[in-house]
Amino acid sequence: MSVYESRTRRLQNLLRRNGVDAAVILSLGSYLYFTGDVRKQPRVVIPSEGEPFLIVFESEEEEAKNNTWIRDVRTYRSLHQMMAAIMTAAKEQKWKKVGFEFDFFLPAFLNERFKMAVPTVEVVDIHELVTSLKMIKDEQEIGLIRKAAEIAVEGMKTAIEYVEEGVTENEVAAEAEYAMRKLGAEGTAFPTFVNSGPRSLWLHGLVTHRKIEEGDLVIIDLGPVYHGYAANMCRTINVGSASEGKRRLYNVYLTMQRTVINNVKPGVKVLDLENLAFKIVRDAGYGEYYVRGIGHGIGLTFEETPMPTIFPQDVLVELRPKMVFTVGHPVLSVPGIGGVRIEDTLLVTEDGNEKLTEYPDTLIGRVNG
Amino acid sequence: MSVYESRTRRLQNLLRRNGVDAAVILSLGSYLYFTGDVRKQPRVVIPSEGEPFLIVFESEEEEAKNNTWIRDVRTYRSLHQMMAAIMTAAKEQKWKKVGFEFDFFLPAFLNERFKMAVPTVEVVDIHELVTSLKMIKDEQEIGLIRKAAEIAVEGMKTAIEYVEEGVTENEVAAEAEYAMRKLGAEGTAFPTFVNSGPRSLWLHGLVTHRKIEEGDLVIIDLGPVYHGYAANMCRTINVGSASEGKRRLYNVYLTMQRTVINNVKPGVKVLDLENLAFKIVRDAGYGEYYVRGIGHGIGLTFEETPMPTIFPQDVLVELRPKMVFTVGHPVLSVPGIGGVRIEDTLLVTEDGNEKLTEYPDTLIGRVNG
Repeated sequence: MSVYESRTRRLQNLLRRNGVDAAVILSLGSYLYFTGDVRKQPRVVIPSEGEPFLIVFESEEEEAKNNTWIRDVRTYRSLHQMMAAIMTAAKEQKWKKVGFEFDFFLPAFLNERFKMAVPTVEVVDIHELVTSLKMIKDEQEIGLIRKAAEIAVEGMKTAIEYVEEGVTENEVAAEAEYAMRKLGAEGTAFPTFVNSGPRSLWLHGLVTHRKIEEGDLVIIDLGPVYHGYAANMCRTINVGSASEGKRRLYNVYLTMQRTVINNVKPGVKVLDLENLAFKIVRDAGYGEYYVRGIGHGIGLTFEETPMPTIFPQDVLVELRPKMVFTVGHPVLSVPGIGGVRIEDTLLVTEDGNEKLTEYPDTLIGRVNG
Repeated sequence: MSVYESRTRRLQNLLRRNGVDAAVILSLGSYLYFTGDVRKQPRVVIPSEGEPFLIVFESEEEEAKNNTWIRDVRTYRSLHQMMAAIMTAAKEQKWKKVGFEFDFFLPAFLNERFKMAVPTVEVVDIHELVTSLKMIKDEQEIGLIRKAAEIAVEGMKTAIEYVEEGVTENEVAAEAEYAMRKLGAEGTAFPTFVNSGPRSLWLHGLVTHRKIEEGDLVIIDLGPVYHGYAANMCRTINVGSASEGKRRLYNVYLTMQRTVINNVKPGVKVLDLENLAFKIVRDAGYGEYYVRGIGHGIGLTFEETPMPTIFPQDVLVELRPKMVFTVGHPVLSVPGIGGVRIEDTLLVTEDGNEKLTEYPDTLIGRVNG
């Protein structure tokens, strides 16, 4: 039995245990996870009993069959036929409860359309069922994330070397992304952040055409994807010599991040790490600026369970071996000073963790002397 | 009155006319459209009467105020506070109907969360109200799309020059994207397609690590974004010398695309273009392979109204001057032969259209002699 089939059988167990008649998988990450195939507009339907089926564009049928263990491939040539393939199955199999993953990949309008088309079927959220499987990585997955992490490190090196006064944020991102693509990344899991100067204060990030200036803090956050799997890494640098206030803020973050990393091991809850991070920041006098969400799972999507910034209940998730978890997700930003983030991707081991994005973390590098 | 304020006032008119008490804008494109500001996790609330307000991360308050005409800026430090800002307004202003844009930027889980938190408020879809404004571009918008289109052309040139036997799809995309970034694009509106060989049959696209082979058809689809605005362009090339079947298929598509472009002018409905395209393809003997969705609007998002592949009723939209519309969206793919797409971005003028992505469209170029 292939790894993809075995994951599917485990999901079927969970579906039965939770009284869900079928899972409709619509995101590339989950589709790849259960089928081994990569497809745009990915659709696999996994009933709680019996065999799953793919729904693919008619011309893709042969290729899809070759790429996956799933033998039942249904085809469409119009949007209408694609929807009909799901609805027909729902009616024939008399499904009462159908599960979708309620994450960023399920737009509200699709959910509403489905409910209108099959009003007798109850739609339920199977996000937690699916991510409970994905959370623990196998060796192949760890290998891919390890490679993505190596690519992130090289991208970071490229970006930091490129930063200087007068260069735009977008130019820095362009160089980093190009370097990562040349090393085999097929893209990024989220738009690269290069948050410079006043924009270092941002909660999240992106790139603008702003020119980097002397004295800027510059936050660079990278998420390369390698054969479907992402790593995530962030560094903050200072252009020219850093003020006392910036140095202090940076060092508070660094102490916090290093201490939390030292505590990442099996049995620890995300909440424990969150509380530890908060205490360090608060004791340093920046408590009011602390943003919750110290880290998140990562794998086939940039944020996977546990991802407490989106799903607050995820703080109760306990770390286990072979989970991949980042530490250093939230910005610590103080108006008048700037913002700092230092984030690394960690593999939880039997007795601690291994940092997959090994790279200098002090405010040196490109920067001030 | 700034252009952003004037757009907001026009939306308020539409809200009142449709009995919607407030619009909650959550996508970057619409946020930029009404505020002039760029932000990650963009949120602007536009009541049908009175003044709109932004909801931003506390540390971003000053910058957000500087970047926009909107004077009421409410802040949050946690997800909870962000949601509360909307709910408090809903309660204080006694909103009965709140509008969200039901498009790809509204995840189902956010919609469900909002409905649970404010069960007395009815959520309605204002996608059509907002896009009815966005559909007609002003001179500044046209200038930005024109620049994005020039960048797409340069990206295409780079990609086509780079294609050869043994190069991966991903490497081609890397070169094209890097070239576009260096010319000022801040990213792409959708993941670049490089669909080669059997993958030219796909309905949609992406890049894999597949090595391009002699005889492959290669579909390259680019969507650079320049200061928020996208252009969209696709070409299909053949590596080495093309078979008779591929040449024939290519020429059918080309005839179809050129004929449809010649018919793009004010007063024409999308459905007219669709029927024209279908007739040409059917008369050439490929009717069963025709996929509906001949083109789509484009601007602050890659697909804007009219986008009949997602919203079938959009076939009834009539083209008007200053709309930007693409022609050549659907693949024509025939198993055993391959797939072809040729897409351009057009500005609808007073009496016809202007092709913004001017570039050779015949099966020559890099390709066969």
